[in-house]
Amino acid sequence: MRDLPFDTADPRLAAAAWTRIAEPGDAAAGLVRAAMGPGEALGWLTRAARSGPADAHRPPPQVQQQAPWLDARKWGACVGRWLPRLERLDIRRELGVLHELGGRLVIPEDDEWPGALDDLGTRVPAALWVRGGARLNSVERTVAVVGMRASTSYGEQVAAQLAIDLAEHGVAVVSGGAYGIDAAAHRGALSADGTTWAVLAGGVDRLYPVGNTALLETVEATGAVLSEAPPGSVPSRYRFLERNRLIAALGAVCVVVEAAWRSGALSTARHAAELLRPVGVVPGAVTSMASVGCHRLLRETDAVCVTGAEDVLELLAPAGEHLTSDHAVQPGLLDDLDPFAARLLDAMPARGAAGPESIARAGGLSLVEVRSGLGRLELAGRVERHGSGWRRADAAGR
Amino acid sequence: MRDLPFDTADPRLAAAAWTRIAEPGDAAAGLVRAAMGPGEALGWLTRAARSGPADAHRPPPQVQQQAPWLDARKWGACVGRWLPRLERLDIRRELGVLHELGGRLVIPEDDEWPGALDDLGTRVPAALWVRGGARLNSVERTVAVVGMRASTSYGEQVAAQLAIDLAEHGVAVVSGGAYGIDAAAHRGALSADGTTWAVLAGGVDRLYPVGNTALLETVEATGAVLSEAPPGSVPSRYRFLERNRLIAALGAVCVVVEAAWRSGALSTARHAAELLRPVGVVPGAVTSMASVGCHRLLRETDAVCVTGAEDVLELLAPAGEHLTSDHAVQPGLLDDLDPFAARLLDAMPARGAAGPESIARAGGLSLVEVRSGLGRLELAGRVERHGSGWRRADAAGR
Repeated sequence: MRDLPFDTADPRLAAAAWTRIAEPGDAAAGLVRAAMGPGEALGWLTRAARSGPADAHRPPPQVQQQAPWLDARKWGACVGRWLPRLERLDIRRELGVLHELGGRLVIPEDDEWPGALDDLGTRVPAALWVRGGARLNSVERTVAVVGMRASTSYGEQVAAQLAIDLAEHGVAVVSGGAYGIDAAAHRGALSADGTTWAVLAGGVDRLYPVGNTALLETVEATGAVLSEAPPGSVPSRYRFLERNRLIAALGAVCVVVEAAWRSGALSTARHAAELLRPVGVVPGAVTSMASVGCHRLLRETDAVCVTGAEDVLELLAPAGEHLTSDHAVQPGLLDDLDPFAARLLDAMPARGAAGPESIARAGGLSLVEVRSGLGRLELAGRVERHGSGWRRADAAGR
Repeated sequence: MRDLPFDTADPRLAAAAWTRIAEPGDAAAGLVRAAMGPGEALGWLTRAARSGPADAHRPPPQVQQQAPWLDARKWGACVGRWLPRLERLDIRRELGVLHELGGRLVIPEDDEWPGALDDLGTRVPAALWVRGGARLNSVERTVAVVGMRASTSYGEQVAAQLAIDLAEHGVAVVSGGAYGIDAAAHRGALSADGTTWAVLAGGVDRLYPVGNTALLETVEATGAVLSEAPPGSVPSRYRFLERNRLIAALGAVCVVVEAAWRSGALSTARHAAELLRPVGVVPGAVTSMASVGCHRLLRETDAVCVTGAEDVLELLAPAGEHLTSDHAVQPGLLDDLDPFAARLLDAMPARGAAGPESIARAGGLSLVEVRSGLGRLELAGRVERHGSGWRRADAAGR
């Protein structure tokens, strides 16, 4: 095999090349990059390809050291997937396409690199292909909002409102750019002048799906459209599933708005749970097929029921923070009256007056309790004296 | 004070009398009944009333032994609530009303007594006032289905279907006879020829609410209308809250269908949780005020999301039973293809044929993997040979 036509020692070119050589989520590729660095790993791979299968199928010493369990057969299978991609590789082409689109490559060494992705371990992307007006490190808090494409207007409304409220709290909304819930989430964030990222399964040169082109262009203008697959990559189903792990990693919390029994959003939720991100689930009618997957998550996993941005912010905040919750200031399950006073008031006739003895019998209270209780209720303006007895304050006008 | 005009040694009369003397859920009354038996406790109370406060306010020795923490002041407050009720007490009047209505008193010694009530400890009712065509011990499994009165048609539909499905599995549906969810649950059970019990807060002589009279008469005919309060008792708010503990105790599982932020159904759920009954919650739209309490239960308690009778039966069955769940036979989250085969199929052109090398590059797979995978997909009828390459089986007609 010929030499690669570009400088494999250039860290940006090497990282970009790995996104072309290995499929998203390829742990063996992550391993060899981590062990040798992307450039040296690429050099090793071209030399191995040249010297033949025997060499290629033995892990380099640095990899053997880090992964002694990786035997020659497993390693050979991995390398065997990379070699066909090496043949016509010139990643400068894809970078050229990206630059023409005004995009940029973001690699782990860059300030802009989202450190959250490193939680993916060996399945971390080699680089991100990014088109977008805002730098990825300009946001402090992120929430992934995902759901099915065949959503209902209920789900879209909830996703949009959630995104609006999150954006107004300075939270960037991460989603997948798809029809349905994804689109509603992006639109909501945009309408609140918030930041939103669309993570695509294919290359950022083709805004997919086509029907969302205008939306994704708006997302790009103020936020970012990004992918780990280089320009020219088609959004295959496999890449969609691996793309979901990126959405899960980029969001500090993952919220599923609507999902059928089987839905890609469930795979995003699973990835999020594996990455120890809290998963929030928006419930819906049990009669709606679009909520079946959500209820399934609530039943079968540790996912938390969320009904709005307030609940999501609670998941986002480290314990103890965000105590401005509306919920916290709500009164308890019972009324503003203490149970005893409520029982006493219950025992009073709806109309007319009654003496303490009669009230005691009706309420199953002692005379002492009735007398002191009536005094407290009088202070609260709920009862008043009437002749020799007592009546409800609101009974006067009856 | 005069002697009571009935035989306080008669266990039925004594038990009935206690339901008139003490309010529902009075733990001190439960304590004295448990310590002395209802008859002797009643005799003690009349003697104490006669000899004056000093005697009445000292717990009898049997109670002191069981509850040494119960000091004279606390005890005095309890007894002070019973004494006013003793004055005009003749429980034969209330029993006469019950018998005229064709009802019966059920006391803990009866075969018909639901043993589940004993979980209430000192807050167990002294007796149940029952009107109903079916004996309470004729049912094996029970589920409480509760919810708010101001329900939506969604909630009523779900409650009715749940009750129908539970009834068809031989489960008796316990509820409170109220408008809204309660009524829908009773109606559902009746429409499936199932057994249903309405637990009232007031006496069974007045079927409450009036608008549900016809429904409650039907419930009575084939199931039961019951209360721990004697005929003539008004359904005060305090009694409603205590009534909820009976519903919670009578159901082996408690299901909340719709509940506002504050709703009596939440108190039933809380009682059920305290009694270690599983609590199921039917979710709804987050935009519906009628589901706010349900989502609150899901967030703040151990309640489980249930979407139908199948889920409720799972809660009802001891672990390991009821393995005929529809869910169990559902396929996994992914497709019928294994991920590898799906990835290979993805890599094939939608139209026309491609050689193994081209498929390997497109899918990020090794040649060996492509060749063996194509063989398997051919066996599965998903791909076919075409010239020197392969194409999708469904591409032939395109």
